[in-house]
Parts: sequence; structure tokens; C-alpha cells
Amino acid sequence: MLTEIKGLNEECGVFGIWGAEKEQAASISYYGLHSLQHRGQQSTGLVVKNDQELVQHRGLGLVSEVFSKDILENLRGTAAIGHVRYINDLRGQIADVQPFLFNFEDSGLAMCHNGKLVNAKQLRRSLEEKGSILQTSSDSEVLAHLIKRQKSDSQVLNIKNALAQLKGAFAYILLTQNEMIAALDPNGLRPLSIGRLGSAFVVASETCAFDTIGAKFFQDVNPGEMVIFNDQGMTVERYTENTSRAICSFEFIYLARPDSDISGVNIHIARKNMGKRLAAESPVPEADLVIAVPDSGISAAAGYAEAMQKPYELGLIKNRYIARTFIQPSQELREIGVKMKLSVVERVVCGKKVVVVDDSIVRGTTTKRIVQILREAGAAEIHVRVSSPVIRYPCFYGIDMQNTDELIGYGRSIEEVRQIIEADSLDFLSIEGLVESINLPYYDEKYSGLCVAYFNGDYPTELVDYSDFV
Amino acid sequence: MLTEIKGLNEECGVFGIWGAEKEQAASISYYGLHSLQHRGQQSTGLVVKNDQELVQHRGLGLVSEVFSKDILENLRGTAAIGHVRYINDLRGQIADVQPFLFNFEDSGLAMCHNGKLVNAKQLRRSLEEKGSILQTSSDSEVLAHLIKRQKSDSQVLNIKNALAQLKGAFAYILLTQNEMIAALDPNGLRPLSIGRLGSAFVVASETCAFDTIGAKFFQDVNPGEMVIFNDQGMTVERYTENTSRAICSFEFIYLARPDSDISGVNIHIARKNMGKRLAAESPVPEADLVIAVPDSGISAAAGYAEAMQKPYELGLIKNRYIARTFIQPSQELREIGVKMKLSVVERVVCGKKVVVVDDSIVRGTTTKRIVQILREAGAAEIHVRVSSPVIRYPCFYGIDMQNTDELIGYGRSIEEVRQIIEADSLDFLSIEGLVESINLPYYDEKYSGLCVAYFNGDYPTELVDYSDFV
Amino acid sequence: MLTEIKGLNEECGVFGIWGAEKEQAASISYYGLHSLQHRGQQSTGLVVKNDQELVQHRGLGLVSEVFSKDILENLRGTAAIGHVRYINDLRGQIADVQPFLFNFEDSGLAMCHNGKLVNAKQLRRSLEEKGSILQTSSDSEVLAHLIKRQKSDSQVLNIKNALAQLKGAFAYILLTQNEMIAALDPNGLRPLSIGRLGSAFVVASETCAFDTIGAKFFQDVNPGEMVIFNDQGMTVERYTENTSRAICSFEFIYLARPDSDISGVNIHIARKNMGKRLAAESPVPEADLVIAVPDSGISAAAGYAEAMQKPYELGLIKNRYIARTFIQPSQELREIGVKMKLSVVERVVCGKKVVVVDDSIVRGTTTKRIVQILREAGAAEIHVRVSSPVIRYPCFYGIDMQNTDELIGYGRSIEEVRQIIEADSLDFLSIEGLVESINLPYYDEKYSGLCVAYFNGDYPTELVDYSDFV
Amino acid sequence: MLTEIKGLNEECGVFGIWGAEKEQAASISYYGLHSLQHRGQQSTGLVVKNDQELVQHRGLGLVSEVFSKDILENLRGTAAIGHVRYINDLRGQIADVQPFLFNFEDSGLAMCHNGKLVNAKQLRRSLEEKGSILQTSSDSEVLAHLIKRQKSDSQVLNIKNALAQLKGAFAYILLTQNEMIAALDPNGLRPLSIGRLGSAFVVASETCAFDTIGAKFFQDVNPGEMVIFNDQGMTVERYTENTSRAICSFEFIYLARPDSDISGVNIHIARKNMGKRLAAESPVPEADLVIAVPDSGISAAAGYAEAMQKPYELGLIKNRYIARTFIQPSQELREIGVKMKLSVVERVVCGKKVVVVDDSIVRGTTTKRIVQILREAGAAEIHVRVSSPVIRYPCFYGIDMQNTDELIGYGRSIEEVRQIIEADSLDFLSIEGLVESINLPYYDEKYSGLCVAYFNGDYPTELVDYSDFV
Repeated sequence: MLTEIKGLNEECGVFGIWGAEKEQAASISYYGLHSLQHRGQQSTGLVVKNDQELVQHRGLGLVSEVFSKDILENLRGTAAIGHVRYINDLRGQIADVQPFLFNFEDSGLAMCHNGKLVNAKQLRRSLEEKGSILQTSSDSEVLAHLIKRQKSDSQVLNIKNALAQLKGAFAYILLTQNEMIAALDPNGLRPLSIGRLGSAFVVASETCAFDTIGAKFFQDVNPGEMVIFNDQGMTVERYTENTSRAICSFEFIYLARPDSDISGVNIHIARKNMGKRLAAESPVPEADLVIAVPDSGISAAAGYAEAMQKPYELGLIKNRYIARTFIQPSQELREIGVKMKLSVVERVVCGKKVVVVDDSIVRGTTTKRIVQILREAGAAEIHVRVSSPVIRYPCFYGIDMQNTDELIGYGRSIEEVRQIIEADSLDFLSIEGLVESINLPYYDEKYSGLCVAYFNGDYPTELVDYSDFV
Repeated sequence: MLTEIKGLNEECGVFGIWGAEKEQAASISYYGLHSLQHRGQQSTGLVVKNDQELVQHRGLGLVSEVFSKDILENLRGTAAIGHVRYINDLRGQIADVQPFLFNFEDSGLAMCHNGKLVNAKQLRRSLEEKGSILQTSSDSEVLAHLIKRQKSDSQVLNIKNALAQLKGAFAYILLTQNEMIAALDPNGLRPLSIGRLGSAFVVASETCAFDTIGAKFFQDVNPGEMVIFNDQGMTVERYTENTSRAICSFEFIYLARPDSDISGVNIHIARKNMGKRLAAESPVPEADLVIAVPDSGISAAAGYAEAMQKPYELGLIKNRYIARTFIQPSQELREIGVKMKLSVVERVVCGKKVVVVDDSIVRGTTTKRIVQILREAGAAEIHVRVSSPVIRYPCFYGIDMQNTDELIGYGRSIEEVRQIIEADSLDFLSIEGLVESINLPYYDEKYSGLCVAYFNGDYPTELVDYSDFV
Repeated sequence: MLTEIKGLNEECGVFGIWGAEKEQAASISYYGLHSLQHRGQQSTGLVVKNDQELVQHRGLGLVSEVFSKDILENLRGTAAIGHVRYINDLRGQIADVQPFLFNFEDSGLAMCHNGKLVNAKQLRRSLEEKGSILQTSSDSEVLAHLIKRQKSDSQVLNIKNALAQLKGAFAYILLTQNEMIAALDPNGLRPLSIGRLGSAFVVASETCAFDTIGAKFFQDVNPGEMVIFNDQGMTVERYTENTSRAICSFEFIYLARPDSDISGVNIHIARKNMGKRLAAESPVPEADLVIAVPDSGISAAAGYAEAMQKPYELGLIKNRYIARTFIQPSQELREIGVKMKLSVVERVVCGKKVVVVDDSIVRGTTTKRIVQILREAGAAEIHVRVSSPVIRYPCFYGIDMQNTDELIGYGRSIEEVRQIIEADSLDFLSIEGLVESINLPYYDEKYSGLCVAYFNGDYPTELVDYSDFV
Repeated sequence: MLTEIKGLNEECGVFGIWGAEKEQAASISYYGLHSLQHRGQQSTGLVVKNDQELVQHRGLGLVSEVFSKDILENLRGTAAIGHVRYINDLRGQIADVQPFLFNFEDSGLAMCHNGKLVNAKQLRRSLEEKGSILQTSSDSEVLAHLIKRQKSDSQVLNIKNALAQLKGAFAYILLTQNEMIAALDPNGLRPLSIGRLGSAFVVASETCAFDTIGAKFFQDVNPGEMVIFNDQGMTVERYTENTSRAICSFEFIYLARPDSDISGVNIHIARKNMGKRLAAESPVPEADLVIAVPDSGISAAAGYAEAMQKPYELGLIKNRYIARTFIQPSQELREIGVKMKLSVVERVVCGKKVVVVDDSIVRGTTTKRIVQILREAGAAEIHVRVSSPVIRYPCFYGIDMQNTDELIGYGRSIEEVRQIIEADSLDFLSIEGLVESINLPYYDEKYSGLCVAYFNGDYPTELVDYSDFV
């Protein structure tokens, strides 16, 4: 939720429903997407299946802006898939807004995707050489072309073969007139869970979407699985046996909502544990109080305070109306930016030794300004504690930190970072601390069940299009 | 900030600046109003003074929606006044959006108002009988007509005489080509503070607006004062000696931002004190943990937990994207409403004895639903603690609780309320507890410096238009 | 309709209905205003009377833009008044959009106005001295304040007394809960007609509005009359006996729609007569063909061609999509402006001696460009004939030509004008020719029933606010 | 321009420029498209070539609505292609708005199309079977896929081979980083002309676009030609030798602007000739006057009047503000529709024997209503004369009259049609009369250079997808 401040953006959230009663698939999806809004605020869309056809509505903006009551009422149907997205490219055009809908002469196929493929360019080139025209600039679209070029009479087999060609992070939901299909990449880099709402099945990036619509968690989609929902029920298939769970650890650190569970682990509890562990690894015994960088640092700060038996205080306030406020570029008003987003409660921090807990530091510019405004407010000492390890490597799986030059932790010691942000002290959680705080109930040896590549460079897939990086 | 949930709405926030450098009065006011956005989200406007004239821009919506960069750049000037507002009346038309601007043949007068007059109807009737036409449905406009009908050559005297005729709650800012005037009602029911930004003077409903723009707090406007800002500086005058401080206690309980100070008291600290006092007055020794109803209950909940030495947990999550989301009226989806706004973190509360702290209970419907969703999530016991007293009387000074029938506390014992909301236990802070938690540094005997009329019916003014009530 | 080209703008059109069946007053007014759209395209509004109250809706833009189906369906009532307007002032704010609605404590009054008062400033000053506040920058509003300050118990008498204080051009329609009142200035400068639609009465600036809604013309409102419509029927009263008919001759020349009748004279026929008379006064015997400047010159050109027995050809085409198209300011594209609006049919005019008939010349810039593009298209000779006299004086009654400096005919001989526009010959209709072409069926001696002040400086009223001019 | 009334809609207009000075390709195209606005008002777009890439902007609405000054200024480049369109399908989505832009991994291709292919379905099916995914519902897109699937190294040869597979009506403009290509179908069903603007080349559906931007007509694109514009100049190639000119005669009758020339014939003059010929074929000697159905009947009516030596009068007025006005569906207001669009000048027609000339009759509903409103206005006799033959067959080449059931002339004698529209007499121009009035300077024997299939069923191409029709 700190998107603007951190400049660190998840690409998407996906939602799907099959078998909705009273043709309310669109309305239920609307509430589901609303619960996933923190995963992407720049575009959204739905494809709804009614008796005759697949119908699409999409637009730039929030779920509540793109869908009006009238629009939803006209989108009746028993199944739907939907998407929320952060668009990196400012040229972001409506053609790139998901779900995509492909109308073939004899049928239709809709799809939406959370994650990022690492061999999309290679696949695009190959498809174009064979005469295909790709319409969007999205990596997600290649799956449709791969499916379309399969020759089998079995649609399920065609999709399996197409999925097997993809590399990278993907949680796909597909919709046809006959079925809804959810598919997860071989590492399960992105979360994808299945729930039940009466007799209907729902699929969502996070379980918080289930709570909102009154659905119950049923089971997670596992790495390499392709789950088919149709009028006969649900069938779990596999398109590959070569899997190794490596869930993106940033889902736990920052991206997911505190009330979601991923692989059986509640996000708030994981974060509070990170805070407690951080207190053990890097205490500040002389501190008077602990404050959080809201909102994503709140759970860890509470854990840190509890473990240290220090007061947990509201030292920084986040302005709830910041979205879309423009910042005046004039010299005089330049400093207003961070103050509009975060305010210090001066009487709380003035004269005090303060531990300020944030969930992560990417570029470091916001952290530096937070230290500044705390200092201006009279804080005696400012100890920054970060409830995740130092980010030293780019992410190619959908988190917007591809450029190592922008990472403050790239090629710098912690002390060098501390000097830049001008804190009195600075420390980060260890990788082991992170993994043990999350404490996944089951995982493979290889990656402890988590992708921590941004911390240690150990990428769970080939990088293909990005192999120059290594 | 819980406006939608509580259905309890402040009427306005006001902001003014005189002597802005580089003609940036509008841009500075934009950021100032943005900081006051929590006081009203339905309309906003600015009147800016340049060398030639007063120029107005206003609209329905948030500050960031009504003002674009282009608009602000065209509104250059050295002084400005602005307003954010919650409009009760759904008919709310642009003519009613403040600040009002009156263009006389020889001069101009702009004004904006926070609060509510209790003799506006009486004054309107009298003005119309004398041939005046009032354009808006607002009670605020009468002041302009009262001023216009004064006969003195001294504009200051005319304004004093006009202000002396008003009864009720008002923090007015007026702007002419020659001066800006801030005036507060004889009880100081609404907050109004003065700050300095370089050589410029700023006035705002809350001090949080000063922090954002980099201004420093200078002094409060006191009850019965009329402060004149012009190119010679600032002059404090009085339009009445008959004053008695009685600041609306709901500003401390719920309305103001935690980082604001009112009469030298920080809001977060006051709320945390309310929580501590509540723990002393009504402890729950058997509780496993304490949670808050976000956002307004957070400070008090942290205080309660600290005093009780119990863990403070994130048991309820507020959805940040709720604004303007419509709720489907169908039977099937009716229950979604509160779940869209607040989510339970099931793994935190399941099987636990929970104290849930809210800042106040008005109608009780939200509280009842919170108890329900906590119960559904498996909470073993639910103890509701409210960090303000029982609301038993209407407010006529600008807080949207005029109808006693809607108040759950009207004519009911606490036990009766507890049965309605289905909590395991329920308790409220005492009036003494509230007053002592706020602990104003200076006040008059009569009202302890605070208006607590909604709790005890002791209104600090005549009620005039509403005297039937008594 | 040539507004953009001529830059000569009527201020308004008014419409009213009393006694509409099935509460369709708003829908009928919508169609009525639509027929009057040529009289003003920049703002429009309606006030509708239902059983309880007067309800207002207004906005900037065309009738079809400001009113949607939903809005109209929510505006049900048995009476309504409406307005379309051209706003001179680019600052034109919504507060200035008519009809105005004044909500008094005990009643309501709505009004709309076509025309322009010449003593509005004098009246405003006097009202403000007595303590009134005028909200709009419109001259129209003063009538409401004059009425409000009358002391009689008879609303009719109060309105009569107020109307008697106005000087200038006005066709007012007023609406209260009990009646609709139409009033015309003592010279009848602006047109105002009454029609019947079943049992309902309608009032409109032009009779073309009656045809559209299926109403029948009943009678004109005469100078000095005040016509009252209520549930008992229609009553004609007079607020002054001092009247002298002097209808704005520009209504016949340019403003009104060809299918309207004013004082029993059809506009198209009057214009065709002007063309015939112009042919008699200033023939071009050597011409090969006659073309019109579309659209307003079409009737006169057809008349001229018929009288001269020359072919009437389509030599200039008007682009129907020109509204709101912006013109690129770059050097290279500067000349595109007039070509976007008017195109020459090259094969019609090439090598020919052409008479081009326009209805009037105000600034002369468009005429000059028309001559240029005809010349570029190869016309051998270009003879400009204008079916109205030379404009030598400003208008103070609502036509947008107040500044004599902008009038090409001001202080210049016809030969001097010809040289500026570079035509081979140029001539204008005589004032006598104009009056006899219109041929009003009844009129007073004094002004021949027509205001021709822009041609001869003989203003039918005192000029009051503009008396410096003389 | 009578689109709404006739319900007969051209599909498109296209415009292109190569070699624009000062990178003004977009601005020039804006004015060019504006001149073609009568060919389609529902969507428009541009693709502009700058040094790096092809950039697209498109939207639903008029040219003046879709393009703002800011947008144009950001679209700088030396070449551009643009499109205006009428969209039949109400589902019309932005993806279907032309020009299309295909971004391949190594290059880009933009295209726009006027006309309609008759083998698009056949081609789509074949492409999908080979694994292609078509994104739009447009028939135009298939050309891109056909080109992409060609294997030659020569882009020109690939395009030639692709064009040779198309059947039906098409005027295509293609744009790549290296060239602009204009191509016309083997019958030249749609018009396409080349002009010069300084050193730049322009291409447009109608020559009126050249006049607006100051370009000079250079030559027409001929049937079967593919004209290549690049930095070396212009090259005319042919993709087929099997051509036979058959220009859509409706371009002359109704679609094109009167100031355009097609194949050397001016539209206004052709229409005036049709009117004269109609007078010779079917005179009404007893008529008092001749009136036109505006706007498209004006030229023919003037010709008819001139040939008959009868007065040409303005008997019907077209409302200029009709666009997008909705029509109230209630019983009482149902009849308002046609009256909003067309008004009778009662004093012109009352008591007279009237010849009313229209350019064509498609469904007949508007003609019937025109006869009604003339009758209601008191016309003594109403003689309808139509300056084109009876429409008896559908069009498959882009004019919106595919359903024979909707054609009033389908399976009816002229007398039967007369009875339906309730005119006193009715007659149509003969096919020979039409062809001789247009009088093309050059043509092939086979079709006299004109497609008159809607009149005689003689289609110049195979119908392929529509062969069931025959």
C-alpha cells in the first residue's frame, strides 16, 4: 500500500469464479478484485461468460472507477475472470489492459496473468517468424499464440503443451465457454489459491479476496499445476513434474495484505515474527520507543517493540488522500512531497531515541527523507531497522526493481547506506532470519520454499531474455 | 478517516494565507487543504487574491480532483483562502461550495466557514424581510449579508458588529483586496490556529496543515477573537468579551488528525491517554490481546494495551481503496459491505479473548458487524471498549448527529447497548476520564474548556433555531 | 449559425411552459431549447416546477450535452422555464448560467432573460448601497432584487413596479410555484411569442420552437406587456403605457431561424425580399452566377439570383463539424482557419464573374478571406453584395458589437471598405430597403417598428450606463 | 451529412502524408481528417512516424474531440496516416478503431482502410486455422496477417501478394518506418486521390481534404494500383492487371462533399446535372416552387428548379445541433424526432404545389415524415423527385444497406412506394440518367466506370462470403 512512497510495484492480482449463482459472477468478481486492489491500481478488467459469449469490460483506473453499477448489472454471467494491474510503461494503452479476450471465428478465449515471463521475447520472436502478429506489448499474450498453434484436438493438452514452453513467474487464469483454468509456474513464484463460495469455485492471488466475498479457503494451486473448473467440478492436472517451490519472499515482506495467508502462513504474523527476530538480531537497548513506517512496516514494528518491551508509538502518520496528488515542481515547494505522504507526530518523537522500523529499503530516497523529517521534529537519535535483508540483485519475476543502479544496497556496505540515509544506526534482517520468520510449513530443500534472489542472486529459473545480466 | 464506517462527519476545514512569496498562495493552499482533506471530502475551493481581483475556483470532489496543475498555475496571487467540506445534502450544488465570493461593484469579499450557526434561520428570515436575497442554502452566507448591511465607514467595525450577531460554532476566514480576517466563535467550538511561513501568515483548522507546507505554529485564535492580517502584519481584535472556551471534544476523540495539536494538546497523545484511562476504568484482565478499530481507534488501543501490558495486535485491517465503492443492494451480496471496509486477520483472533477498542459508538451498526465478523473468525470472547463516553444528545454545532433516534446510546443503558451489539462485555470512558485525558493546559471553569454536550446535554450556547429540542 | 465566422453573437433564447400534461414540462422544454440552440451554445439550464418545489439543472455546453435522458427523467413537473446562452466573458461561471433560482425561506422565484439592460450598473449600485448582495455578474439578476424590495402584498404589482425600473432590451420569463410570467421591454427589442400545446401554454423567443414540439402559435407578447399564466389561464397586463415598438432588425437579418415568424413576418421570406431588393438597388448585370455565404446568406442570395435571373450556385460549402475545432497557431498552418470553415467549389467559380451575397459585414475579416479564397479558386470577378446596411454604431441591447473600433463600417466609406476586402465591387442594402423588405404588418411611426440603431445611431431608449458613448 | 436522417452510412475516410516539413504531419492530418469528417463521425485515429518509431493515438468521437492541441503537439513526425469511421456495431471498441498499429519485434506496420472486403470471413478462417490470432472484429486487419505470412525478402512483393488475395472494396493506406503505401481495389470502388503539399505527398479519400490544407491535386490512384511514397519520391506499381473501373455511384449521389472531385468530376456539378436530368425525365409543370431535403438534396434541387424555371425555395430547414440529441421514447413525444431534425418553413409551402427533391430513398421512413410535415404545413400538392434510381439490391462494399428487407424499393413498384410515403407523385432518376449526369471522362465498357449494383444487381466482384445472397 506504500506504492507511491517505495516505488516498488507488484504487477498484478488475478481473480476468477466458475459456477456463480444467479449470474452474479461479475458482481462477486468486482468485490474480489477490490480486495486485491493493493496489488495494482492502474488498470482493471473483467471477462464474463454468459450463455452466448464472453464479454469484456476494462479500463484504466481503480476497480471502483472502471466499474459502475450499470456496467456490472449489464455483465451478468455464471463465470468470470478479472485482473488488477500496475502498468510500468507510461504509454500503457487500453489494448494492454487484462484480461485479454481473443474472439476466434468459432470460440473465445480470455486470459489474465500475474507475474512475468523471462522468455517472452524469445517466444515472441519465434512466433513472429512463423507469421503471428502479437497485438499487445505484454509478455502475457504469448500464451494465447502458443495455445493457438497447438495441433491436438484436446484443448487441455494444447494448453499443457503451451504452458510447458513458458519460463518465469506466472499465475494464469484462462476462461472459455466450457471451463476456467488456473495454472501456476513450476516454482510457484506468485501466490494462487482456490476457494469455495457455495457450489461455485473461486481462484484468487490472495486469500483476503475470499474473506470479502464470504468464500472459504479450499486449497492452494501448487507449482506446475493446472486446475480445471467446469460444470463437472474441479480437476487438478500437472503440465510438468519438474517443479521446486520458491515463493517470492516479497509477498511476505511487503506485497500481500496482512490478512492474507500464503501457503498456510498469515502475512501479519510472518511480519510480526520478522520484527521480533530483527529485535533479537539487532536490538537498540537504549531506545525510548519504536515507531513504524506506515502501512507496511506496522506489523514488524509492533513485533520489534513487543520483543524489546518498548512502547510502540504512532510517530509517523500516512495521509490517506495522497493518491494522484501531483507534486509542484517549483524550487520552493519541492520538499513538500514526502511531507504530504508522511507526517511526523512531533510531540511523540521530540527529544526521544527512536527506532523506526520499515519493511524494506529499495532506492533509499524515502528512508533518507523520513530520517530528515524525524530529525527536524527533534528526535534525539534515529535507529533504522529493516525487517528484510539488503536488496542486492534485480528481480525478473514481476517486482519493479530490475535496474541494479537504482538499488541503494547494490555494491554498498550497510555502513555506506547508513551514511547516505544519515541515520544514527541501521540494520537489516538476515536471510536466515527472514526464512525462519516466515517458517513455511512445507518446502523443497533447494530454495527453502522461498525465492530470495534479490538478496542472494540465486534465481530459481533460467533467465533466458535476461541472461546477459549474469 | 473512518467517515464511511461511522457515518459521522465533520462539516469543514478552512485554510488561509496572506503574504505568500512568488505569488504561490494557491499552490501552498492546495497542499494545506490536502492536509485537511480528512475534514471533508465532498467539495473544495479556493479564492485567490492577485493585484487586480479575487479569483475563485471550486468543485465537487477531493482537492486532488478539483485542482489540476494547470488550474493552480493560473491562480497566482499573494493571498488565498480555501475550504474542504462534507456536504450533508445530496442536492449539494456548486453554488453551495465554499469559499463564497461576493463581487460588489466597488470591491470583493470572499469567505469560508467551519462550524454551524444555530441562529441562521432566524437571521435569514430577518434579512429576507428587509429585501435581501440569499443565494445559497448554507448558513455561512448570512455573515456576508450582515456585514453588507452595516453602515459604518470602518470595514473592521462592520465585521465586528456582524460577527456579534452570530450564535453557534464558527471559524471564519474572510478575504478582501486589503486584508485576511480570521474569526472564532465565543466558545471556540472549532479549532483555528495561526502559523508563519517565512514572512507570510497562515491560518488553518488544524496544525497538521502547517507541518506539510513547512510553516511553524505561531498561536491559536482564541474564542471571540478576530485576527486581521494585512501588509502591515497581524492585529488581534475582539468582537465580544462574553466568551467561554468549550472546544468540541469530538475534535480530540475522532475528527482531528493524530499529528495535529489543538490548544497545545497533541491528538495522538490525548487519544493514547484516553486508552490508558479506559484501561484503568474498565480493565479486561483475562484478555489475550488488544486490537483497534482502524484508523481512529489505533491510538487509544495502543494506550489500552500498554496500560494492560497485553499484546497490541493487528486484528482488523482497513481497506485503503474503499472510497466511492458502491455496495450491491442484492440479498446475496448485502453482507459484503462491512467486509469490504474491514477485514479480520483470522489467525490473530481465532480462539483468543479479544479486547477491541473503538474511539466512539454513534449508531452502533458498524460495531455490531465488527463483533459479528470477529465472532465468525473464531474469537473466543469479544470485549468492546470505547475511548469516549456514551453519546446521549444531538450536536447542533456541525457534527452530523442531530437526530437522537439514530444514537444507539439515546435512552439505553450500557447493558442494553451491549445486548444489541452482542459483545461479551462493553464499556465506555467516563466524562471525567475524557476531560482528564485531554488535560487542556488552560480553560474556563464553566465548561472545563471542552464541549461535551453530546454526553451530558450541557450546550454552551443558546440553541435559537433548535430551541424546540430542549 | 455562422457564429464562429461572424463573431457576432446573440445573448440568449428563452422558453417556458405552464400546464404540461403528464409532468413532461422538462422534456418539452428540452426540445424547445434545442430549437433555440442557434441563439446561444455556451450554456443552458432549466428550472422545473413540481408539486413541492422549483428544481434547477444547468451547465456549460449544448442542450444535448447538459441534459441527459436520466437528468430529464428526474426533472418531472408541470411547468418549466429554460435558457440557452452565449457567454461573452470567458470567465463565464456556472453561477451566471440561467435560469436563476432564488430560494426564499417561504417561496421560490426562477427567472431567465434574453436581452441586455442599459441601466443595470446604475441599479446594481443603488441596490448594493441599500445592503443587497448580487451573486452573479449578470445584468439579469437585478430584477429579482427589485422585486424582493417591493413592499406590496400583490406579487403581480411588485413585479410590475420592478419591471418599470428597467431600461433596455428584455424578454423575461419568471416562474414561481403559482404562476409563470412573460414580460417584454417597452420597445419589444427582443422577440417573444406565446403558443398553445393542448391545454398548456408555451412561451419562446422564436416560433420555430413551437413547430418542433407540436405547439401552435397563439399571439406575440407586445411591448410593455406582462403576461401571467396560471391554473386559471392566461392574463395580459401592462406595466407601462409608454411603449414604442422597435424590434431588433438583426433578428430578421441574421439571428433568427429562417422558419421562425416575428411579428407575423417569416424570416426566410424577409431575407429573400432583402436579396431581391438588393438586386434592384445594386445589380451586377454582367455576373455569371450568384453564390451565398452559408448559412445565413442563403435566403438573400436565392432572392438576389431570382430577381437577377442568374443561376444560383453552391460556390461555398460550410463544414458542419467546425464547432470547437481549434486552430493551430503556427505560421505554416495559420491560413487553414477559414478554409476549415468554408470551402470553395472550384469548378463552380473558376473563370466566372461571381456575385457573393452575405447577410451582413461586421469586422470584415471573414469577408476579406472569402474574397481571397474565391480569387485563389480562379473567380474572374468577385462582387460582394450585403443584404443589410453598413453597421456604423454599436449595439447596447445584447448583440455582441459594442466596440466601434471593431466595426469595419465605422468611419469608412463603402469604397474604403471595398479596398480592404479587395472585392471588385461592394454594395449594401439601404436602410429603407431593409425596412420595406421586412414590411412589418403593424408598427409605430417613431421607429417603423424596427430598431436600426447600429445603422443610423437612433437608439430607442436612453442609454444610461452607456451615455458616455453619445 | 444527413447521416442520422437517412441512416445510410459510409464506413470511412482515409488520409496520409509523407515528407511533411517541420514534423507537422500530425497537425496537417488533423485538418485533413477534419475535412473528411462527413465520411465517419464515430471514431478517428492517427499513426505518426517520427525518427524512432510509429506512434498511435485514437479514440471514439469526432476528430475535434479525440485530438486536443496537447495531443497533436506531442505527435510530431514527418509522416502520418489517419482515419475517420462510422462504426456499425454498437459494441464498437477502441481495439477496432483505425489506423491499426502492429508492433513487430523488429519493425512496425500501420494501416487504415476505407471500404469492405467480401472475402474477409473466408480469409480469417484460413488464417486462424494456420494459428494466427486476429485481434479486431474488423475485416481490415486480415491484410496485416496476409502480409506477415509472406516469405519474400521484398516488403513490396509481400504486400502485392497479400493485396492480390483480397476481394471487395478497399482503399488502403499503409505506413512503415520507410514508406507510405496507398492501394486501391481492382474496381476502384472507393475514391483515393494523391496531392502535393510543397515537397510532401498527401493521399486522401476526397480532394476536399487537399483544399483545406492548401495542397494541390496531383493524380488519382487507379484500380489495381499500389503507390509507394518514400524519401526517393513516388512510385506507381500494380499488384494486378485484372481491373475494371466501377466507382461506387453513391459517392456521387450522396456520400462525397460537394466541393470534392472524383475522377475529374465535381460532386456538386454532377448532382446539379442529376437534378436537371430528373427535371427532363420527370417534370412537374404545375409546380409553384422547388425545395430540397437539406443538405444532400440541395444541389439536385437547385438543378431541378433551374431546368424547370421554377423558384428554388428554402422550404425545409435542417437543425445544425442535432448530433447526439437523444429522442424521448414516450408516446406523447414520439413525433418530435423528425421535427427536431427538419423544420418546414410554413409560409413558404402553405397553399403551394411543391416539388421536394431528395438525393435518394433508402428505407423511406424519413421521406414519409417529410411528406407528412409538409402536408401539415398546408402544402397543396407534394411531388417527390429523387435524383437517383430506385435502390433494389444490397451493398456489400461498405454502404450500410445490406438488408434488402429494409429497402423500401425492394420488390415494390414506384406507385407502391408512393402510396407508402403518401406523396401526390413520386419519381426517380433512371440509371442511364444517373450515368450520363455524372459523365465520367474515362471508363471501361463493362461498368461505364460506375458501380450501380444497388440499382441493378450487377456486382463488379465475386461476393464470396455473401454468395448465399445471390
